[in-house]
Amino acid sequence: MNTDAFATYESNVRRYCLSFPTVFTKALGATIWDEAGKSHIDFIVGSGALNYGHNNPTIIAPAIEYLISENILLSLDMYTAAKRDFIEAFVKSILKPRGLSYKIQFPGPTGTNANEAALALARKYTGRSSVMAFTNSYHGMSLGSLAVSGSASTRELGGVARHDVIRVPYDGYANQGFDSASYIDCVLSDPGSGIERPAAIILEPIQAEGGMNTASAAWLTEIQRICRKHGVVLIVDDIQAGSGRTGEFFSFEFAKIEPDIVTLSKSLSGSGSPLSIVLIRPDLDIWKAGEHSGTFRGNNFAFVTAGAMCKMWSDVRFTAGVERTAVKLQAHLDRLIAKFPKCIEQKRGRGLMAGLKCRSSAVVSRVHDVAFENGLLIESSGPNRDVIKVLPPITITDAELDLGIAILDHALQEQDNV
Amino acid sequence: MNTDAFATYESNVRRYCLSFPTVFTKALGATIWDEAGKSHIDFIVGSGALNYGHNNPTIIAPAIEYLISENILLSLDMYTAAKRDFIEAFVKSILKPRGLSYKIQFPGPTGTNANEAALALARKYTGRSSVMAFTNSYHGMSLGSLAVSGSASTRELGGVARHDVIRVPYDGYANQGFDSASYIDCVLSDPGSGIERPAAIILEPIQAEGGMNTASAAWLTEIQRICRKHGVVLIVDDIQAGSGRTGEFFSFEFAKIEPDIVTLSKSLSGSGSPLSIVLIRPDLDIWKAGEHSGTFRGNNFAFVTAGAMCKMWSDVRFTAGVERTAVKLQAHLDRLIAKFPKCIEQKRGRGLMAGLKCRSSAVVSRVHDVAFENGLLIESSGPNRDVIKVLPPITITDAELDLGIAILDHALQEQDNV
Amino acid sequence: MNTDAFATYESNVRRYCLSFPTVFTKALGATIWDEAGKSHIDFIVGSGALNYGHNNPTIIAPAIEYLISENILLSLDMYTAAKRDFIEAFVKSILKPRGLSYKIQFPGPTGTNANEAALALARKYTGRSSVMAFTNSYHGMSLGSLAVSGSASTRELGGVARHDVIRVPYDGYANQGFDSASYIDCVLSDPGSGIERPAAIILEPIQAEGGMNTASAAWLTEIQRICRKHGVVLIVDDIQAGSGRTGEFFSFEFAKIEPDIVTLSKSLSGSGSPLSIVLIRPDLDIWKAGEHSGTFRGNNFAFVTAGAMCKMWSDVRFTAGVERTAVKLQAHLDRLIAKFPKCIEQKRGRGLMAGLKCRSSAVVSRVHDVAFENGLLIESSGPNRDVIKVLPPITITDAELDLGIAILDHALQEQDNV
Amino acid sequence: MNTDAFATYESNVRRYCLSFPTVFTKALGATIWDEAGKSHIDFIVGSGALNYGHNNPTIIAPAIEYLISENILLSLDMYTAAKRDFIEAFVKSILKPRGLSYKIQFPGPTGTNANEAALALARKYTGRSSVMAFTNSYHGMSLGSLAVSGSASTRELGGVARHDVIRVPYDGYANQGFDSASYIDCVLSDPGSGIERPAAIILEPIQAEGGMNTASAAWLTEIQRICRKHGVVLIVDDIQAGSGRTGEFFSFEFAKIEPDIVTLSKSLSGSGSPLSIVLIRPDLDIWKAGEHSGTFRGNNFAFVTAGAMCKMWSDVRFTAGVERTAVKLQAHLDRLIAKFPKCIEQKRGRGLMAGLKCRSSAVVSRVHDVAFENGLLIESSGPNRDVIKVLPPITITDAELDLGIAILDHALQEQDNV
Repeated sequence: MNTDAFATYESNVRRYCLSFPTVFTKALGATIWDEAGKSHIDFIVGSGALNYGHNNPTIIAPAIEYLISENILLSLDMYTAAKRDFIEAFVKSILKPRGLSYKIQFPGPTGTNANEAALALARKYTGRSSVMAFTNSYHGMSLGSLAVSGSASTRELGGVARHDVIRVPYDGYANQGFDSASYIDCVLSDPGSGIERPAAIILEPIQAEGGMNTASAAWLTEIQRICRKHGVVLIVDDIQAGSGRTGEFFSFEFAKIEPDIVTLSKSLSGSGSPLSIVLIRPDLDIWKAGEHSGTFRGNNFAFVTAGAMCKMWSDVRFTAGVERTAVKLQAHLDRLIAKFPKCIEQKRGRGLMAGLKCRSSAVVSRVHDVAFENGLLIESSGPNRDVIKVLPPITITDAELDLGIAILDHALQEQDNV
Repeated sequence: MNTDAFATYESNVRRYCLSFPTVFTKALGATIWDEAGKSHIDFIVGSGALNYGHNNPTIIAPAIEYLISENILLSLDMYTAAKRDFIEAFVKSILKPRGLSYKIQFPGPTGTNANEAALALARKYTGRSSVMAFTNSYHGMSLGSLAVSGSASTRELGGVARHDVIRVPYDGYANQGFDSASYIDCVLSDPGSGIERPAAIILEPIQAEGGMNTASAAWLTEIQRICRKHGVVLIVDDIQAGSGRTGEFFSFEFAKIEPDIVTLSKSLSGSGSPLSIVLIRPDLDIWKAGEHSGTFRGNNFAFVTAGAMCKMWSDVRFTAGVERTAVKLQAHLDRLIAKFPKCIEQKRGRGLMAGLKCRSSAVVSRVHDVAFENGLLIESSGPNRDVIKVLPPITITDAELDLGIAILDHALQEQDNV
Repeated sequence: MNTDAFATYESNVRRYCLSFPTVFTKALGATIWDEAGKSHIDFIVGSGALNYGHNNPTIIAPAIEYLISENILLSLDMYTAAKRDFIEAFVKSILKPRGLSYKIQFPGPTGTNANEAALALARKYTGRSSVMAFTNSYHGMSLGSLAVSGSASTRELGGVARHDVIRVPYDGYANQGFDSASYIDCVLSDPGSGIERPAAIILEPIQAEGGMNTASAAWLTEIQRICRKHGVVLIVDDIQAGSGRTGEFFSFEFAKIEPDIVTLSKSLSGSGSPLSIVLIRPDLDIWKAGEHSGTFRGNNFAFVTAGAMCKMWSDVRFTAGVERTAVKLQAHLDRLIAKFPKCIEQKRGRGLMAGLKCRSSAVVSRVHDVAFENGLLIESSGPNRDVIKVLPPITITDAELDLGIAILDHALQEQDNV
Repeated sequence: MNTDAFATYESNVRRYCLSFPTVFTKALGATIWDEAGKSHIDFIVGSGALNYGHNNPTIIAPAIEYLISENILLSLDMYTAAKRDFIEAFVKSILKPRGLSYKIQFPGPTGTNANEAALALARKYTGRSSVMAFTNSYHGMSLGSLAVSGSASTRELGGVARHDVIRVPYDGYANQGFDSASYIDCVLSDPGSGIERPAAIILEPIQAEGGMNTASAAWLTEIQRICRKHGVVLIVDDIQAGSGRTGEFFSFEFAKIEPDIVTLSKSLSGSGSPLSIVLIRPDLDIWKAGEHSGTFRGNNFAFVTAGAMCKMWSDVRFTAGVERTAVKLQAHLDRLIAKFPKCIEQKRGRGLMAGLKCRSSAVVSRVHDVAFENGLLIESSGPNRDVIKVLPPITITDAELDLGIAILDHALQEQDNV
């Protein structure tokens, strides 16, 4: 496999390719093949952007048809039939069954574009500039999103990333047995706390990059109460945890909260084509026409595939299958934890958004390498890179799941024997 | 045509659709059709993101083939065959013939993602945080790009957008007959000027959103000299003016400068699929692996179409055709200016990136409406919205161009008679 | 008493004069007289700037002599005999007996000038820009000091006061039983915490404006340990609590810590003449000559009176007297607390830096008014203005102290009967 | 002369003392003596803080009387008889004769305290946060004032000094023949300029630290017009150029402008005792009681001496004498310029606020050293330290002035012969 072009011309910033030094070509479901014909089970799925598997035929077929018929591909925010179909499908299959009524904004197609739009709207709505964000959060690589992210290496990047952010501890941070929600309520109530009332609190119900840390329903409910008490906009960044990843469409459904703003991207298009939306509580939709824009907000290819994805959620066989797979995955992980106590410290996450907190980053690194050799792609997360992310497609077949887990089991076995 | 879904569910932020209240479906070349079957000549082309026309068969055909064969669509920054093909085509057809040797970074797929990456790299490289940017510039909607943009309404959006930016006058600003390059040199040389040495100067060779303001070759050359003298990184944002828009691939070729960093997006994919790259002078490529990332940086659909686009530039019939069309467009505009002095004040832009500075925004607004009624899509730019942007596909047929211009002529005629 | 000039010409910003609507003229020890000849016991003493009483003859006599002899009054940072005498007295009577060896910087003569210099030096020394500061802190009214202060109303003032500050909870904040020192250690150790390593931690051992909150010796020791562990400069703002206020010269002596930087002002001159100094651990004194300046840093009148003040600390009768007075004051306060449980919730502070936390700001306000009527000046502090500050001169006579307390007792009595 | 105490205990930040390595003791008028009994003519006068000479008996005598009588020295912002007398004298002798009606705010006693208060008030009044400031300006060492200052070395100090400042060129900047006022008007009128409407424009009519740069009456008038047109507060920092330095009390009188806010300090007390005030256009005095504070705002010693200073301005013999001295100084300087063209490039300043722009900083440095040796104190200014500041007391006797100039002449002579 020829990788000269990458070595010679691509920037040193490339990374996954160094972990997986091969050239990929075809992909279907949970499996991808490299140029040498070797197959790999994919537990990364585009960092959560391919929850429905690679080239899911239900999703891709209408897109091929759309292309062949010379339908419009890029349309800014003009009206198109494909966009209308997507909106209708999203409302019918996703929002209405969950009793949610949001206005939909189409910002630029990446997650960080959506978060930037959400933060800008919250600032505009409240007239305040600071935002409260959590330890070990991750919200994206553009400056507004970087500023609210927790990782030191990420934040240094912007050079100017510290502004207007109030950092507070996430649910269960530092195992202090310390009630972070109550602390937040306290500083917002005390005029001498030195902490201004923020425009928004932005949070991920599960912090994927931060180490698969999981907020409890009680904590989420309490944060929502605090936001309402103090007139602060609650933004849920559901970019990685949403779009079906936890087994439900939104990752916060289990807590029965209703955030003021929700951002979605990654798996939203179902196809890997860039798409993001911002869901806005209707009375908060005070945007003036054209006030926020972006060239690629009218990606009709993605509208077509996203519409097909949404409709799957109206199919009870689909949702039952996802639920069953989640249970199966959790059972697998429980077994691994019991089997490899020398390697694994703790299970993290929920549903199909799972993590294994290991004893060290060295363990994770070796498991990663052995797994790749045997045909499984996994990646790590957390500030100390000691958590294995386990993100199979939510549509993975039993055979693929079992194979992937078997390879993981084998890789852990080797470390456990060390 | 049913637009209820938009009215009920889409955010108030939508704008183009209000200017063009119809639902578009099919599109080919410079023509798009709405659901009622009416055709429109498109002089907006996705705000410059469809320089090669809608559904250009040379570009789209390989993508359809790619999809049908179940090739990998989203790959983060793993190696794929499609990405390799794109890099090779870009180097062979674009960089090498122009004597350029850049490293290529793939950030998130939107223009603002690319500018944020460029700014972050310049800050990292120099260890400085402020950036020099120009009056009436536009660099994108995420916070780092907003901060360097000039438009007041845009900048207010971020709430925190003012930081670390030094604003200086663009070439010819305010018709002061004032040498802005010499002023910049002066403040950077004076330790009492109150202006820190910036990490970078970021500029657009033609300011599209700012009113189609055009920098001279002499000024660009002087800015490059000043950057080198003071150790400042020169970033050219060629997102709208590049990828062929001016008739040459890069908009700065005519000035014979070689920027340290160049950002491309919009028409780079050729298909309207989101894609952006950052071109980096090799010794400046000090990124550590994974230091900058983004889910959608591996959009293989776009790699395929972008590769096809690049190859067109190796075809002399293609480049000769573009050149001829540019000449033709300029002749059309010269004629309009001579014909409607009551409406038009000045021609702006270069090549196929043209603008008509009108006497007032009211004129522009009425011309826009009459043109739309008669089947032509145009939009305005500039701080006072009094410049008509004329951005046909660079591959537009003579018949389409003549038709579009005829509709524009008619619309101007009506205003001139007022 | 004619107050027309104030009403007509002085800015609306004036405040104490509204609480005490009379015109003061003479002052001696703990007593001040108004134009009508009425005397008042002073428990405010210039917000802690007159610890040694008004017109203390030991302090003022040499200054009168200095003036009469036409000695130099303002000298920038030139050498003068008066400045030399002060330095020698400060080293001999204050630093040496406490085993401290600091370099002395003379910034502008106000407390906030000193804090700004301390913060600037810490930033320069570490190359970092953010500073960790506490809930309910108060460090001054210029922008750098405002930014690290806690009070919302104060902070809003600067308009831009939020930058580069990390807010953390003070010892015992919010009665959460939560170990704030351990939390600080945790976030500084976690690369994902979103909290950069700061240049400095700045703290007041007793937060006067913040409500007379008192840090424990254990907490101060732990904060010093954390600073050393993470290479963070520890700045103690001893502007109000130092210069003898707690009964010892520095307020942190009881905790046996040795801060990297200490700022002093207020009572430092002993006379009320503006003077401040920054004490710097010698290896941290990396200032270049002239790098920090200020017109009034050479106030020789203040050097003369400050020198006289320092020498008092070498007199054991003086220090024994202060100690005795502190014990006496505390006994008085304990008695008041026992007597008026309906008014007073808690005793605050240490030594002669005392506070009475009352049940409400309304109580405090009425006590203040009744006390003034009867010849006692007191003021309130705390975010909710519900703490009575009790700051008599540390040189107060028994008779003055008893009289002041009797008036306070009477005023509390009236409220307790309500 | 013993300087051990300074070498051992004073911070490395000290500077003037390195230029003038002697210990000063007595001072009267324009003359100061060192411990060895040597006399020096003082053309620095506390960086402009001793315009009325050292120990001016008219000013100091009432202060000695005040001290001896045990009058109150420090009073926060309570009413005192001394403060009332100062206000009345300032209104009667300074404001009324000039047709000015300002409210007077007493902030902390240093110049930077006054500028911080002025900036805070302008931000509060307008609800905007950025401030427009000029190349080579100097406004003080605390963070808010640093941010608007021009000098690179000063600005770096704050670590965070760049925020919310728009830098624009001062009158005549860079000899570009470029109309900076018109440029400012243009960017404030253009919604795409990237420059927000600021809260205030802050300027010095003569930039002392910036190199004795002098604004013309026409430019000041134009800036005032632009401020009024755009609703921007005009702040004149008259800390060094005011209080009589130019020969008139305010340095802007010659231009017949009436700034919205004026800050005074330095020579305001007449005695060198720290004092500053903020003069506020009455309708702009929207401070709430206590919203801005400072311990040392009630320095009654300074009120007494400042009152005595004000009354001098009602004496026509005094003002005539100052005028005559200004003429005499200018004649002296014209003669030096004509005599030493190899050393001196240009005269700077106005009235008794004079500067000699020399050919290099090396010349200035040597002139400084030779002058000191012969009994004259001078200092340099400007970004390249190549301007000799000539700031004698405005009350200097002819004999002292002639002597000082003779020493300067001699020192220049030596350089001219090199």
